[in-house]
Amino acid sequence: MTINVGIIGATGHTGEELISVLLKHPNVRISRLYNTSDEPHKISDVFPQFKGRCELVCSKPDMKDIANHCDLVFLALPHTVSMNFAPKILKLGKKVIDLSADYRLKNIKVFEKFYHAKHKDAANLRNAVYGIPELYRANIKKAKLVANPGCYSTSAILALAPLVALGLIDKESIIIDAKSGVSGAGKKLEKGLLFLEVNEDFRAYKVNTHQHMPEISSILTRLAGKSVSVTFVPHLLPLQKGILSTIYVRKIGRTQNLANLYKKFYKNEPFVRIKKEGEFPRLKDVVGTNFCDIGIKEDTKSVIVISAIDNLLKGASGQAVQNMNIMYKFPETTALL
Amino acid sequence: MTINVGIIGATGHTGEELISVLLKHPNVRISRLYNTSDEPHKISDVFPQFKGRCELVCSKPDMKDIANHCDLVFLALPHTVSMNFAPKILKLGKKVIDLSADYRLKNIKVFEKFYHAKHKDAANLRNAVYGIPELYRANIKKAKLVANPGCYSTSAILALAPLVALGLIDKESIIIDAKSGVSGAGKKLEKGLLFLEVNEDFRAYKVNTHQHMPEISSILTRLAGKSVSVTFVPHLLPLQKGILSTIYVRKIGRTQNLANLYKKFYKNEPFVRIKKEGEFPRLKDVVGTNFCDIGIKEDTKSVIVISAIDNLLKGASGQAVQNMNIMYKFPETTALL
Amino acid sequence: MTINVGIIGATGHTGEELISVLLKHPNVRISRLYNTSDEPHKISDVFPQFKGRCELVCSKPDMKDIANHCDLVFLALPHTVSMNFAPKILKLGKKVIDLSADYRLKNIKVFEKFYHAKHKDAANLRNAVYGIPELYRANIKKAKLVANPGCYSTSAILALAPLVALGLIDKESIIIDAKSGVSGAGKKLEKGLLFLEVNEDFRAYKVNTHQHMPEISSILTRLAGKSVSVTFVPHLLPLQKGILSTIYVRKIGRTQNLANLYKKFYKNEPFVRIKKEGEFPRLKDVVGTNFCDIGIKEDTKSVIVISAIDNLLKGASGQAVQNMNIMYKFPETTALL
Amino acid sequence: MTINVGIIGATGHTGEELISVLLKHPNVRISRLYNTSDEPHKISDVFPQFKGRCELVCSKPDMKDIANHCDLVFLALPHTVSMNFAPKILKLGKKVIDLSADYRLKNIKVFEKFYHAKHKDAANLRNAVYGIPELYRANIKKAKLVANPGCYSTSAILALAPLVALGLIDKESIIIDAKSGVSGAGKKLEKGLLFLEVNEDFRAYKVNTHQHMPEISSILTRLAGKSVSVTFVPHLLPLQKGILSTIYVRKIGRTQNLANLYKKFYKNEPFVRIKKEGEFPRLKDVVGTNFCDIGIKEDTKSVIVISAIDNLLKGASGQAVQNMNIMYKFPETTALL
Repeated sequence: MTINVGIIGATGHTGEELISVLLKHPNVRISRLYNTSDEPHKISDVFPQFKGRCELVCSKPDMKDIANHCDLVFLALPHTVSMNFAPKILKLGKKVIDLSADYRLKNIKVFEKFYHAKHKDAANLRNAVYGIPELYRANIKKAKLVANPGCYSTSAILALAPLVALGLIDKESIIIDAKSGVSGAGKKLEKGLLFLEVNEDFRAYKVNTHQHMPEISSILTRLAGKSVSVTFVPHLLPLQKGILSTIYVRKIGRTQNLANLYKKFYKNEPFVRIKKEGEFPRLKDVVGTNFCDIGIKEDTKSVIVISAIDNLLKGASGQAVQNMNIMYKFPETTALL
Repeated sequence: MTINVGIIGATGHTGEELISVLLKHPNVRISRLYNTSDEPHKISDVFPQFKGRCELVCSKPDMKDIANHCDLVFLALPHTVSMNFAPKILKLGKKVIDLSADYRLKNIKVFEKFYHAKHKDAANLRNAVYGIPELYRANIKKAKLVANPGCYSTSAILALAPLVALGLIDKESIIIDAKSGVSGAGKKLEKGLLFLEVNEDFRAYKVNTHQHMPEISSILTRLAGKSVSVTFVPHLLPLQKGILSTIYVRKIGRTQNLANLYKKFYKNEPFVRIKKEGEFPRLKDVVGTNFCDIGIKEDTKSVIVISAIDNLLKGASGQAVQNMNIMYKFPETTALL
Repeated sequence: MTINVGIIGATGHTGEELISVLLKHPNVRISRLYNTSDEPHKISDVFPQFKGRCELVCSKPDMKDIANHCDLVFLALPHTVSMNFAPKILKLGKKVIDLSADYRLKNIKVFEKFYHAKHKDAANLRNAVYGIPELYRANIKKAKLVANPGCYSTSAILALAPLVALGLIDKESIIIDAKSGVSGAGKKLEKGLLFLEVNEDFRAYKVNTHQHMPEISSILTRLAGKSVSVTFVPHLLPLQKGILSTIYVRKIGRTQNLANLYKKFYKNEPFVRIKKEGEFPRLKDVVGTNFCDIGIKEDTKSVIVISAIDNLLKGASGQAVQNMNIMYKFPETTALL
Repeated sequence: MTINVGIIGATGHTGEELISVLLKHPNVRISRLYNTSDEPHKISDVFPQFKGRCELVCSKPDMKDIANHCDLVFLALPHTVSMNFAPKILKLGKKVIDLSADYRLKNIKVFEKFYHAKHKDAANLRNAVYGIPELYRANIKKAKLVANPGCYSTSAILALAPLVALGLIDKESIIIDAKSGVSGAGKKLEKGLLFLEVNEDFRAYKVNTHQHMPEISSILTRLAGKSVSVTFVPHLLPLQKGILSTIYVRKIGRTQNLANLYKKFYKNEPFVRIKKEGEFPRLKDVVGTNFCDIGIKEDTKSVIVISAIDNLLKGASGQAVQNMNIMYKFPETTALL
């Protein structure tokens, strides 16, 4: 079985990575590439590495064209732009995987506070499925609209899910110190993203005000069954790809051997790897893969959990393809191992 | 007034940086360079950037030579090596600034646990002054032996001193998430320090077991007047120089406007700069300088403090020269601004 | 059809890249991994990124084991080591692709001069086929032993082949200014390969004495039908992967539109891409791929040719798999696009 | 003696570096900082590293203000902008050191071809002195207007001057393969200068069309006494600072021991260092200094010369201060060693 897939936002980082992954997928034909701003042009002019591998032309998104040529559409668009397209595509009876934040937060007020824009599609928001396979695989199977998680959120939620779901930690104590490579920032032409500003530098940004905070809190709250809040400080690393999150929590009770508990929690998961005691993840082991590596350090009163992912793969396009594989009953690791 | 200064360990990172700073010092003549292992050789053969600026020959340390040619000796040596030299030099009536850890921890058992070696010089350890000018300037003035602080320790202690000294925080709650450039690791020929291992990578190491932990705890304990412990996770950044520490603490009571409080605490300090509210330090602003930049984010219950230093200057050789300036009553910023 | 493939030297850079490529190959089963020095150990302990994808154990090479389990063996070994293994494996009737320099130079004296060792296998050297598919595909098809080209050599030979083969340039005038990422240097634990030595640095090395010079000259001489010599200066770039060679030659005669001539020369080649006039290659377009990109700037008297490859793929393991595809009549781009 | 110095263009890279150097100069008071576009603001808000060291306000350039407060003005401005200011300042009787290209090319037609703008100040162009101290020290001493050389030009001219001045090489044969760090490109907000575009990449640009070509040719022509042309290909290195030029020439005659000849040529020069035979420059030895390091490899027919400088110091602001020292008879190395 082969499906026809379109990408809106094909010229951004997540679009580029999606093309890269899908070109290796035996059950997918990339049928259409769209972007919202430029004149039609060959994708291989934007990304010369695709020359000789993908010669599709990228044009403005058109609903008739989508109706005729796509079974599924990936929205690799900026936040607040996706919700202009998703309802129209869903109305055509097509499936949608949205890589923006538009369908991640069920609470519209919180969305509007953190994304500084009105939400325009409450109807579909209600039915959107949060696309972390490790937690919501059953729902993803039946989903028409998947809200693909944020990169920081993926790294934090996978690291915390066992502790939170099993009620092992003080829910007021979660501190997430996260560090991301530059590709997490998208393709904006900003002074702060110039080589001379980033290279040989390191800094925190959006200190405890980042828009992934409410995303993390809301999913952890769902897992815990009661309100969970987090402290969250993201930092910018002078490198291309990867997120490493160092997470500090206080335990309640006297659990021990958390590494074993994590191994059980994730035992059938193809993309979560738990480190042996005393070993911790590093970016090099996950960049270029769809894996999330997790290491745990447990003391009497507290736990340190460190997780690492490729922000563009498990943190975005890789996880999006994993979700697609689940929706279409393809083997979940297809094109991702 | 000009003093004659010797450096033992001149060919390491901190030795190199010491030479670089002292060459600009109008009251210092670098009279002797020593290292412990190699044949005599010109320092400009090891560091070609000194060609035409410093043509001293580096030879094995010799006490008679020191007696005749040095007023002060910097020990830029590995931990557990300094204590072989300090007592002999002090016996000559010369002053010593030790950049290793050998005289930082008053508790010999703790030293031996973290540095895996017997301490050989309890006598001088007792009188050694911990060289953070912002806290112990009066003692440094009269010191014969200064224990120059560790790089991580400097960044953490300066960031926490006001909160701890004024009793504003829960002393069990301190979490220090620190990130250092590679020069912090010294010049070892180790697989983990190869370009291909470090570049485009990021990882934690010595998770909550690093030897600077007891150093930080012991100084904070002295400041607090009661036992303080810290959680400490260092990480390796793919860049040359700089430490940025992101520190999380829980408040007790309802203080506000901590930035002002920090400004008061450090108001006469030439090398501590407090950021305006909403601004945070970055490595680029401090690398190449002796400054420590500090930014503060305060919430109802907790505080996030971020500090940045150049690990080889304020974190090592710069602070050592600052201590020397104090000991000899030179203007404190000489050669450092 | 599926073949069983062994790799000797699986824990080096080219071994790692070979595993990575071959895991994607539908007609290959990696049946055995060997390395020459260590105790048996899981390959995923050396390269944690393979955890969950390849759990083979790496052990000392054993001829009986090879006889029973491999159709083809890749030698991903240091120079002068391969020739200890190749003759034994060939005697078993197995095919060999050697990624070292041991079978590249037909002239044994030149080999011994540049590699400082006696050649031990003149017999097989005679029949070894130099593995640049674009020039020697017909021979590779029938080869038992392929000498896989050097990384610098591949980038220079592909850039110069049309000009040299068609007799368009002064054969005394070739200057190759080449720049390589650090992975070209292999995995040695050398001071010059430490992060602090390479990062933010750039330097030439082996100025006009590098061992790839005679390899390039000998192949160009074969193409020209008369003696060709080259000036060759390699440089070390502060990055992981990629070689960019800037090549200067003087024309004889008045050719024009060399870009067209290059396009014709390489018109059926799946992995050579010629840039439009005024456009030049960059590393980002080829790193992670098996492509060689070439750009040309032509003046009245001289030509500048710039080529770019991934040193570990088209410059080593990718080209090795391309050669294997040709030897076994698999589609030539399998696992490489 | 202390002079009052103004900088127009204080917020660019060369402005920043000028401030940094001049703050260490005992005979200079930075009296005024100007920039052409923004509202008045403290320089330490633009460059936080100057906080506590330089608190001047940067405002629009004003001739009356300059008349009252400056003895010398540095123009750290983009090409074609300097010539709007230089004539006015010179008319006030003040001295000018221009870091742009506006006064480097005596041939106005060549200027206009390479800089795409009319030249507006032919009068002062005639008397401007090209500011390479090693070649034109006597003229610099008496100069009112110094045209500070381009960064690539400095690296190429110092490397070639002995060979060209002594008539040892074929003047048609000069090939300059130059590699520069990103700070050479100025502070433009361009896609090509984003971290994600530069990091882990390497590419040539302006292949044989760069605007420093005619500057190099014209100075070499002056030195040779007859027309010299050069082939010049610049490349972009993924690092902050430094230019390394690898230069290929054909000899005429049979000179030998060129290293000695270079040592004689530059024997009284404080900032040119000639490498021993078999040793070659690297960026790390010169970055952060005003030195130009030169290494030479001589064969029967050809010579390879490699030179390295810090593009912002010897290639711009350092050399500008060296010129100032000469103009005011300060010791030439003041603030530069």
